[in-house]
Amino acid sequence: MTESTANHTQTVRGWAAHDTSGKITPFVFKRRTNGPEDVTIQILYCGVCHTDLHSARNDWGVTTYPVVPGHEITGIIIKVGSSVSEFKLGDKVGVGCIAASCLKCDMCESYEENYCENMQLTYGGVFWDGSMTYGGYSTMIVSHKRFVVKMPENLPLDAAAPLLCAGITMFSPMKQNGMLNKPGKRLGIVGLGGLGHVGVKLGKAFGLHVTVISTSPSKEDEAKRRLGADDFLVSTDPVQMEASRKTLDFIIDTVSAQHPLGQLLDLLEVGGTLVLVGVAEKPLPLPSFPLLSARRKVVGSLIGGMKETQEMMDLCGKHNITCDIEKVKPDAINEALERLGKNDVRYRFVIDIASSSNGVA
Amino acid sequence: MTESTANHTQTVRGWAAHDTSGKITPFVFKRRTNGPEDVTIQILYCGVCHTDLHSARNDWGVTTYPVVPGHEITGIIIKVGSSVSEFKLGDKVGVGCIAASCLKCDMCESYEENYCENMQLTYGGVFWDGSMTYGGYSTMIVSHKRFVVKMPENLPLDAAAPLLCAGITMFSPMKQNGMLNKPGKRLGIVGLGGLGHVGVKLGKAFGLHVTVISTSPSKEDEAKRRLGADDFLVSTDPVQMEASRKTLDFIIDTVSAQHPLGQLLDLLEVGGTLVLVGVAEKPLPLPSFPLLSARRKVVGSLIGGMKETQEMMDLCGKHNITCDIEKVKPDAINEALERLGKNDVRYRFVIDIASSSNGVA
Repeated sequence: MTESTANHTQTVRGWAAHDTSGKITPFVFKRRTNGPEDVTIQILYCGVCHTDLHSARNDWGVTTYPVVPGHEITGIIIKVGSSVSEFKLGDKVGVGCIAASCLKCDMCESYEENYCENMQLTYGGVFWDGSMTYGGYSTMIVSHKRFVVKMPENLPLDAAAPLLCAGITMFSPMKQNGMLNKPGKRLGIVGLGGLGHVGVKLGKAFGLHVTVISTSPSKEDEAKRRLGADDFLVSTDPVQMEASRKTLDFIIDTVSAQHPLGQLLDLLEVGGTLVLVGVAEKPLPLPSFPLLSARRKVVGSLIGGMKETQEMMDLCGKHNITCDIEKVKPDAINEALERLGKNDVRYRFVIDIASSSNGVA
Repeated sequence: MTESTANHTQTVRGWAAHDTSGKITPFVFKRRTNGPEDVTIQILYCGVCHTDLHSARNDWGVTTYPVVPGHEITGIIIKVGSSVSEFKLGDKVGVGCIAASCLKCDMCESYEENYCENMQLTYGGVFWDGSMTYGGYSTMIVSHKRFVVKMPENLPLDAAAPLLCAGITMFSPMKQNGMLNKPGKRLGIVGLGGLGHVGVKLGKAFGLHVTVISTSPSKEDEAKRRLGADDFLVSTDPVQMEASRKTLDFIIDTVSAQHPLGQLLDLLEVGGTLVLVGVAEKPLPLPSFPLLSARRKVVGSLIGGMKETQEMMDLCGKHNITCDIEKVKPDAINEALERLGKNDVRYRFVIDIASSSNGVA
């Protein structure tokens, strides 16, 4: 019990990394008392995002230990604050990457909380009361109502959990760049992992022509047959890539390591847009000629705002979109993280929090 | 007389580089007979662009010698083709970077000839008849009417010549990104050279708040006092740069060498746009975090289309915008190129073609 903030009274069991080994072990801590604008959620499922692995191991040098990872959270509301009319006991809800924002700036006023200067993440952030935030590798969470999403009745809470990060990360750039109402437009998705596979499903739901671009030729069959992609390009095959010059309108690049951008830009039509959603540790080499010669754009996008997240979730309900997941028990988190580090998962691990005997909120 | 294409009958005196020394010497060659859709122009002035220097020295490895540089051309029409109703003898006109495009593709149909796959440059390109194009370091040029711009009566042909490349290169991204009708928006211009100084004038004419961003603190007084910039940032001063985070809506970056983009992106508001107009030989390092954290954009822009060029020229006439130039005679071209290589010019050399005794078309 490391938390001593005055009103932190709710004891919760979770799983935390304590050093750069990234090894996850059981961890008991306290969360704040449910405030007037808060809901308390019994966590049932939590997706395992690549960011969890980076944070557990302090790959980006910004981790404060202990860290309780997890920002793809689904569960049931078990307490409702006195000023909360949006939710009631028993509601199925989700919590994503954001724990808090200032609620006053232009970004917050336009529901782009994700770009608020004072946005605080669901884990490793600092909440309004000065306490460190702890994520969804735990049996319960207290969330301000602004940062809670209603889950559609028809979506299973396990396979829908990764939508809270992977889903919104792919949806937001599609919406921001006007891809929702342009059936027939040609979308490329670079990387067929947790993010990429949701992107294919969203793109197909919106009537787009979807091309998966991957370094792994072995993924072609799966991309087309199982996920419904229309085309597949092997990015390491210069003949294929050259033959596909100027065949796409829009690309979302999910790769979070350093990689060349010039060959991706060449796939875009004049005026086409390449969206980066992965954070690479080193700068990406951007050649100026493929950018200038066809007034192409490289755009960044970071998760999404809360209204957008609800919209994405409702559309996933409408189109029955969930993630392809592999469910693991809490005692297998370390194994899951290790396999994730090798990209050995199709396509997302989800921790079955409720299955844990350790898991009484 | 190296040109032997059948209908190339008009003898012209010019100045060409013949090898990688880049040394410019007098050169007599032939241009095509004035065709039905052509005009023949007696060249009076030609601006000296950085591209001329790169081409003369084959810095980009694509030069075919001999090369007659020059794509900021102004002069007087001396022949008019039978199918040309747009121009008449004696008209003051300009020719910029484009000698030809396919005239049939989507880009040409939307007057974005600059992004046509078959766009051919004014020098070093291959014209429809298969001949190599020769540029404005010469006493006369034959141009298809589509690629000729009318010069406003009030603009002097010497100081207006660089508008044909430097002017349109700055104007096109402003127009494409909606900066023409947004007075008060905050424009940053990186690099105060031939392009940058026109950008300041255009930005001020459109009512923008203009900040010059330069490595040279010595340029502050000139940028503000002479050119009318509102603000000045020294890009090598981390304190100034940090204090100016998120203060600009839009930046045009004229630097054509490798340079860091992260600190420029940090100057932009959420959703802000950084336009690159310079071609760097090596890829530019693009850090993902400043791009993602505020959904910023990096966009390329390459000169402009012909309608846009005429619009820019008319607006320069309306606002009385010309370039700050240093006029040189043809026998001083080599000296001018050498000084240009050291950025020792404020802000553009213009060759006074008509002054040459060598210069009868």
